[in-house]
Amino acid sequence: MRLKLRNLFLFYFVISSTCLLYVILQSGKPCDWEKDLPIIYVVTPTYPRPHQRAELTRLSQTLLLVPSLHWIVKQDSTVRSQPVADLLSQSGLHYTHLNLKASDPNWLKPRGVEQRNEALRWLQLNRQSDHTGVVYFADDDNTYSVRIFEEMRPTKKVSVWPVGLVGGLRYEGPLVKNGQVVGFHTAWKIHRPFPIDMAGFAVSLSLLLSHSEAQFDPNAERGFLESSLLGQLVSVGDLEPRADDCTKVWVWHTRTEKPKLKQEVYLEKQGRGSDINVLV
Amino acid sequence: MRLKLRNLFLFYFVISSTCLLYVILQSGKPCDWEKDLPIIYVVTPTYPRPHQRAELTRLSQTLLLVPSLHWIVKQDSTVRSQPVADLLSQSGLHYTHLNLKASDPNWLKPRGVEQRNEALRWLQLNRQSDHTGVVYFADDDNTYSVRIFEEMRPTKKVSVWPVGLVGGLRYEGPLVKNGQVVGFHTAWKIHRPFPIDMAGFAVSLSLLLSHSEAQFDPNAERGFLESSLLGQLVSVGDLEPRADDCTKVWVWHTRTEKPKLKQEVYLEKQGRGSDINVLV
Repeated sequence: MRLKLRNLFLFYFVISSTCLLYVILQSGKPCDWEKDLPIIYVVTPTYPRPHQRAELTRLSQTLLLVPSLHWIVKQDSTVRSQPVADLLSQSGLHYTHLNLKASDPNWLKPRGVEQRNEALRWLQLNRQSDHTGVVYFADDDNTYSVRIFEEMRPTKKVSVWPVGLVGGLRYEGPLVKNGQVVGFHTAWKIHRPFPIDMAGFAVSLSLLLSHSEAQFDPNAERGFLESSLLGQLVSVGDLEPRADDCTKVWVWHTRTEKPKLKQEVYLEKQGRGSDINVLV
Repeated sequence: MRLKLRNLFLFYFVISSTCLLYVILQSGKPCDWEKDLPIIYVVTPTYPRPHQRAELTRLSQTLLLVPSLHWIVKQDSTVRSQPVADLLSQSGLHYTHLNLKASDPNWLKPRGVEQRNEALRWLQLNRQSDHTGVVYFADDDNTYSVRIFEEMRPTKKVSVWPVGLVGGLRYEGPLVKNGQVVGFHTAWKIHRPFPIDMAGFAVSLSLLLSHSEAQFDPNAERGFLESSLLGQLVSVGDLEPRADDCTKVWVWHTRTEKPKLKQEVYLEKQGRGSDINVLV
């Protein structure tokens, strides 16, 4: 009887000790910033428009599902706007909020170029070259499956994958043979050195930091912006195909319609416009 | 010395036992289906189009951030399509996948009416009236902040809030005085009994189940669809204002541009169209 009690006690002792160990291990594990996981730096240029808050909300909620992610939001504005600042602080994400008023109107230069280059400079200044990470340029109107972030995380130099609904096609993307990129499925400006949409590649942070002068060419011809950066970093043979040898579409170049706000003008004339204190 | 060791052991025993209790309690707690939390039934009618998978992916990822949620996806199709079925099964959500081919083309009837009514019938057949829950009609192209779901969860009859970028205005929404809805901010068809967008209200499940005949009127005039259901359930005085007395916009009536796929036709003619095995 005494032996049985002792065994029972020993059993209880082992189980409860295991639980103690489990609780200690769990407490040291951050829920969203996993140790040793390369950090994904998502660079998002954004500009004021009626649906800006909607777009940033939607994107922030997608990013919230991705561990070890740092969102660099670059506003096209002379000041950091309070609504965007509030959205970021309430997002639950690790983030950096930058602003820069683009010097040229967007019909002269590809939109967001200067903002993306500013984000590259910020990384050069604020991150060390031994830091493992990956940089992705994510516009605020595209659609991202969380799967694409896990595909890009182990990027050594530059990883690539197809993008849906772009270039007038169902998708544009690299053609892969024996694990190597051997060409591109595209129909628009097929002579581009890297006919890849901004949403279709990610660059390793250390590669970027080791090319301190690398940036997007603000004078690049339309469609050649991606090539202007990638040409400074890699050749086509270096590209690392992802998403099952570039056969899966996990990012889409969606565009949101400009909202029609005609009635607003009509009501404003009658002094009955929408309450300006209600943030949209 | 012996007493000290005994105290130390007792201390360890208490701590490890507490941990055992903690682990037992944690194991009984589901991570996403919180007990006693009313379940939000999100009804989404959807139809085949090039950006359908993008839209459903984006929405599913938003819904994944909401605990105790059941997604009812109603496809406008004679069969349940495999891509939508796969998307749902991989979404990590509790869901029901239904399908119904709408009998009328969408230019005759408001799109999604029959699908929404089918979802109401499904709830009537599959849920008991003592079940606490709330029903929300969420189209797959709108933008939802996760905050709106927490606002609607404690709905007693019908809860309401503003919707951004709808009806030609920055927002449409109820006007609230002393916690009561006293009117509506709208500029379009202002004589509607309930000038509220589909995204601007949620209905308690028990209220719906106690009105077994309640459904959307497929013959309702454009803009009167919401009123056709709500008029069977409540009067304006019953509406429960949410989102800080309807002063916050946490849902937007965004619309996604129809993708231009001209180059696809051009490549197809040359026999170089996009690989049909690549799902977009």
